[in-house]
Amino acid sequence: MVFDTFGSVVDWRGSIIRDLSQWGLANGITADWAKLADQWRSLYQPQMEKVRSGEREWTILDVLHRESLDALLPEFGLQSLTENQRQHVNKVWHRLDAWPDSIGGLLRLKSKYIIAPLSNGNISLLTNMAKYAGLPWDLNLSTEVFKCYKPQPQSYLGVCAALQLRPDEVMMCAAHNDDLLAARRVGLKTAFWPRPTEHGPDQTTNLQATESWDIVAKDIRDLARQMGV
Amino acid sequence: MVFDTFGSVVDWRGSIIRDLSQWGLANGITADWAKLADQWRSLYQPQMEKVRSGEREWTILDVLHRESLDALLPEFGLQSLTENQRQHVNKVWHRLDAWPDSIGGLLRLKSKYIIAPLSNGNISLLTNMAKYAGLPWDLNLSTEVFKCYKPQPQSYLGVCAALQLRPDEVMMCAAHNDDLLAARRVGLKTAFWPRPTEHGPDQTTNLQATESWDIVAKDIRDLARQMGV
Repeated sequence: MVFDTFGSVVDWRGSIIRDLSQWGLANGITADWAKLADQWRSLYQPQMEKVRSGEREWTILDVLHRESLDALLPEFGLQSLTENQRQHVNKVWHRLDAWPDSIGGLLRLKSKYIIAPLSNGNISLLTNMAKYAGLPWDLNLSTEVFKCYKPQPQSYLGVCAALQLRPDEVMMCAAHNDDLLAARRVGLKTAFWPRPTEHGPDQTTNLQATESWDIVAKDIRDLARQMGV
Repeated sequence: MVFDTFGSVVDWRGSIIRDLSQWGLANGITADWAKLADQWRSLYQPQMEKVRSGEREWTILDVLHRESLDALLPEFGLQSLTENQRQHVNKVWHRLDAWPDSIGGLLRLKSKYIIAPLSNGNISLLTNMAKYAGLPWDLNLSTEVFKCYKPQPQSYLGVCAALQLRPDEVMMCAAHNDDLLAARRVGLKTAFWPRPTEHGPDQTTNLQATESWDIVAKDIRDLARQMGV
């Protein structure tokens, strides 16, 4: 069972707001951290698209995040952040908290299944995130291993090859319908649960399953229950 | 901290003998399992050397193991094993037990450090082995990720790149002096402990540290103690 992480397993928006608000307070730096989180994340897909399209060679997410951050800082009155401060802010993606049900659900699933992230976060990001948040992965399947970003087919098929499993022996698990659609297209099983506040209180996307996924759950604990553990 | 696994963390020889003896008993198949384990392992380096030298393109260890096994079976009177039986025997490398100190030592190290295997075992082998033996890795750094076998420099340097660490921030941990020598040559820290029965009761190699490694320990529990956990 492979899991999307940003939004599905960890609460990136809430974590970034909490982390940077506290850091700002301790360092006398004020900014609209929620707006920064949202705008930063809005550059995520366009940045990766340059890599997917071949316009740009393989580049890890930490580097893409940093470029987006540097571009955004002036708009938030943060252009005078030092290099060390920028690095600290950029690494906030390594310090994300799990949603309340994630760890309990994953521990149950781990008792019977191999569980791993399949995330566009790079290897070091996923490693530090797992360490920080206490995510009990069996192994770490960053798309960095396959050098192609989801939802490109080779990212899902790369998992099958690495684990020596047929696509229908692998389940892609995510709170995002588009991730699951791409996985299903190459033959993987699919599981969905909603994260209705991933993008804040006014979220309009991924509030429910848009396809008949193999499993539609309430959260990861419920996914574990439906998987018999 | 990255760990050699075969011999260093898990007891491949003892495990193979135990596993196949039991399997043979249940299936009415007799053979000199200890000799098979030793001869099988003796083909490990020559097989990988063909990949390292470029004579052969990247090939995962499961495939190399299978070729070696098929070559050895007639000598052991096992040429009539079926395809399913051959696959089961070949996957014995996925079912190896940890040495008695390994899990306790790794759990202590994990409380403070990132711990991962750096093994020539392929991704699925290391995943199944960790699941079977209960090895609590933070992530899974098979040389399959870097597509080059230890002791080639790029396997050690690949770890540093993937984790975004300088070589001197990474420690190669092994019961084999040659693995450590190769790691030290590219700047990694090193830790050694002996496994005096890895190759059986008459072992003559790697009984002690042959260089002044950064840490020389009694076993993985002692390594944890020396690392302050």
